Amino acid sequence: MSYARQMLDTYTRTVNVDAGLLAATIDALNDCAQACTADIDADLSEQNVTEMVKCIRLCLNCVDVCTATAGVTSRQAEYDANVSRPLLEACVAICKSCGDECARHAGMHEHCRICADACRRCEQACQELVSTFSGGSAAG
Amino acid sequence: MSYARQMLDTYTRTVNVDAGLLAATIDALNDCAQACTADIDADLSEQNVTEMVKCIRLCLNCVDVCTATAGVTSRQAEYDANVSRPLLEACVAICKSCGDECARHAGMHEHCRICADACRRCEQACQELVSTFSGGSAAG
Amino acid sequence: MSYARQMLDTYTRTVNVDAGLLAATIDALNDCAQACTADIDADLSEQNVTEMVKCIRLCLNCVDVCTATAGVTSRQAEYDANVSRPLLEACVAICKSCGDECARHAGMHEHCRICADACRRCEQACQELVSTFSGGSAAG
Amino acid sequence: MSYARQMLDTYTRTVNVDAGLLAATIDALNDCAQACTADIDADLSEQNVTEMVKCIRLCLNCVDVCTATAGVTSRQAEYDANVSRPLLEACVAICKSCGDECARHAGMHEHCRICADACRRCEQACQELVSTFSGGSAAG
Repeated sequence: MSYARQMLDTYTRTVNVDAGLLAATIDALNDCAQACTADIDADLSEQNVTEMVKCIRLCLNCVDVCTATAGVTSRQAEYDANVSRPLLEACVAICKSCGDECARHAGMHEHCRICADACRRCEQACQELVSTFSGGSAAG
Repeated sequence: MSYARQMLDTYTRTVNVDAGLLAATIDALNDCAQACTADIDADLSEQNVTEMVKCIRLCLNCVDVCTATAGVTSRQAEYDANVSRPLLEACVAICKSCGDECARHAGMHEHCRICADACRRCEQACQELVSTFSGGSAAG
Repeated sequence: MSYARQMLDTYTRTVNVDAGLLAATIDALNDCAQACTADIDADLSEQNVTEMVKCIRLCLNCVDVCTATAGVTSRQAEYDANVSRPLLEACVAICKSCGDECARHAGMHEHCRICADACRRCEQACQELVSTFSGGSAAG
Repeated sequence: MSYARQMLDTYTRTVNVDAGLLAATIDALNDCAQACTADIDADLSEQNVTEMVKCIRLCLNCVDVCTATAGVTSRQAEYDANVSRPLLEACVAICKSCGDECARHAGMHEHCRICADACRRCEQACQELVSTFSGGSAAG
């Protein structure tokens, strides 16, 4: 069980969002930030680094947004849909763009294939979490 | 002249957004992140720390969102309104909430008054930057 | 297999440090940063928050140092012992202090018990990684 | 007056380190992190990006270490020389390396000249702060 899940289980009894979904999203965010950090370094090691510039830039943005979203999502007590909803939407958008660009290089570079996988999982987790807000329970 | 402004002046000739506005926003984001980091520490030093818990939590979120927004805003070449717009909206929302809470303590705690000021400036700068997107030039 | 490990396996053929040790350290650093982020939020939810102030402060420092160390450790190509060694030493020191303080609250607060565990694992992983530098292979 | 200085003036009455030196160091750390973030983006825009790879990698490490050091340095109440000293040493080392590499490109790229300047100032500020520890007042 991840530390995110272990920690949530100890103190989020009053949170409206499902603890399993929340922990899975936090794990996906941290995994994606780590995969993108490593992918930037791997891209910089490629001979055709000029072709990897867009991938590097998107990964840099993805690290920043995923890291912030993991932090805010970990703090449920002062939850505010006006912050969390657009932040998760920004995260879905950058994970989609970054995952698409990584997928373009997946056949050539195994590190991009793995990073694309991390971006897809994170995009889906954030999408799923944000969709629970529409029902209003979390946003209420 | 801030480093954000000096750097932007050297290489963003093709950016549609005004470099002065962009640099002022990045400076406001970094100032706000620093003010909130220091305010958390100052809040924790107060005798009535129980009353500062909400302020601390909002400052923690504000640091995370401002830091990510400063990073993404600094990378104009791979600019994407689908990411930047909701990210700036999230930043406006947390700066508003955090500034309001800090302002509540401003009469009692000078550090909260200063932090509220940094949050207000950041909220306004992000609001102004996001409003330039509506005209479509940056988003195009 | 963690993303850190998957990524390292694709591109660190020339790194002198064992990829398994490197990946385990990066995972421990990210786990510790997440545990401390969640522990801060949990501490702030406790009625006796005044007694948790030291724990919160140490966790804040631990998040910052672990996050930076995870980033630098993930970039092996431009490895420099003059940076990595003191950074890992700072990380060992803050994980030790933070783990000790969390352990003091472990009997009362399950979230502190789990966070102490994450700090101990991270301290050990960083200690083990830094000890490989003494042999000189990585620093060479 | 910077926000770091304004904030320190409100609440660090008991800190042994000079508030002006502390605030100048925090400002230099934040400036350096911002300059390096922008320099990475500018490097990626250069036609000869292959020649900028080392510069990008060092700037990435410099952002991470400066950000962590700014956070820890901003939290003076739970000050611990066993953490701050090696962290500042790591920061001096990466600012030195990054500044040297940026200076190599300064004639060709104005953004590297400015980034080198930010690195030098940060290196000096951290060096000055860490030298005050040797006297023992802060470490005591």
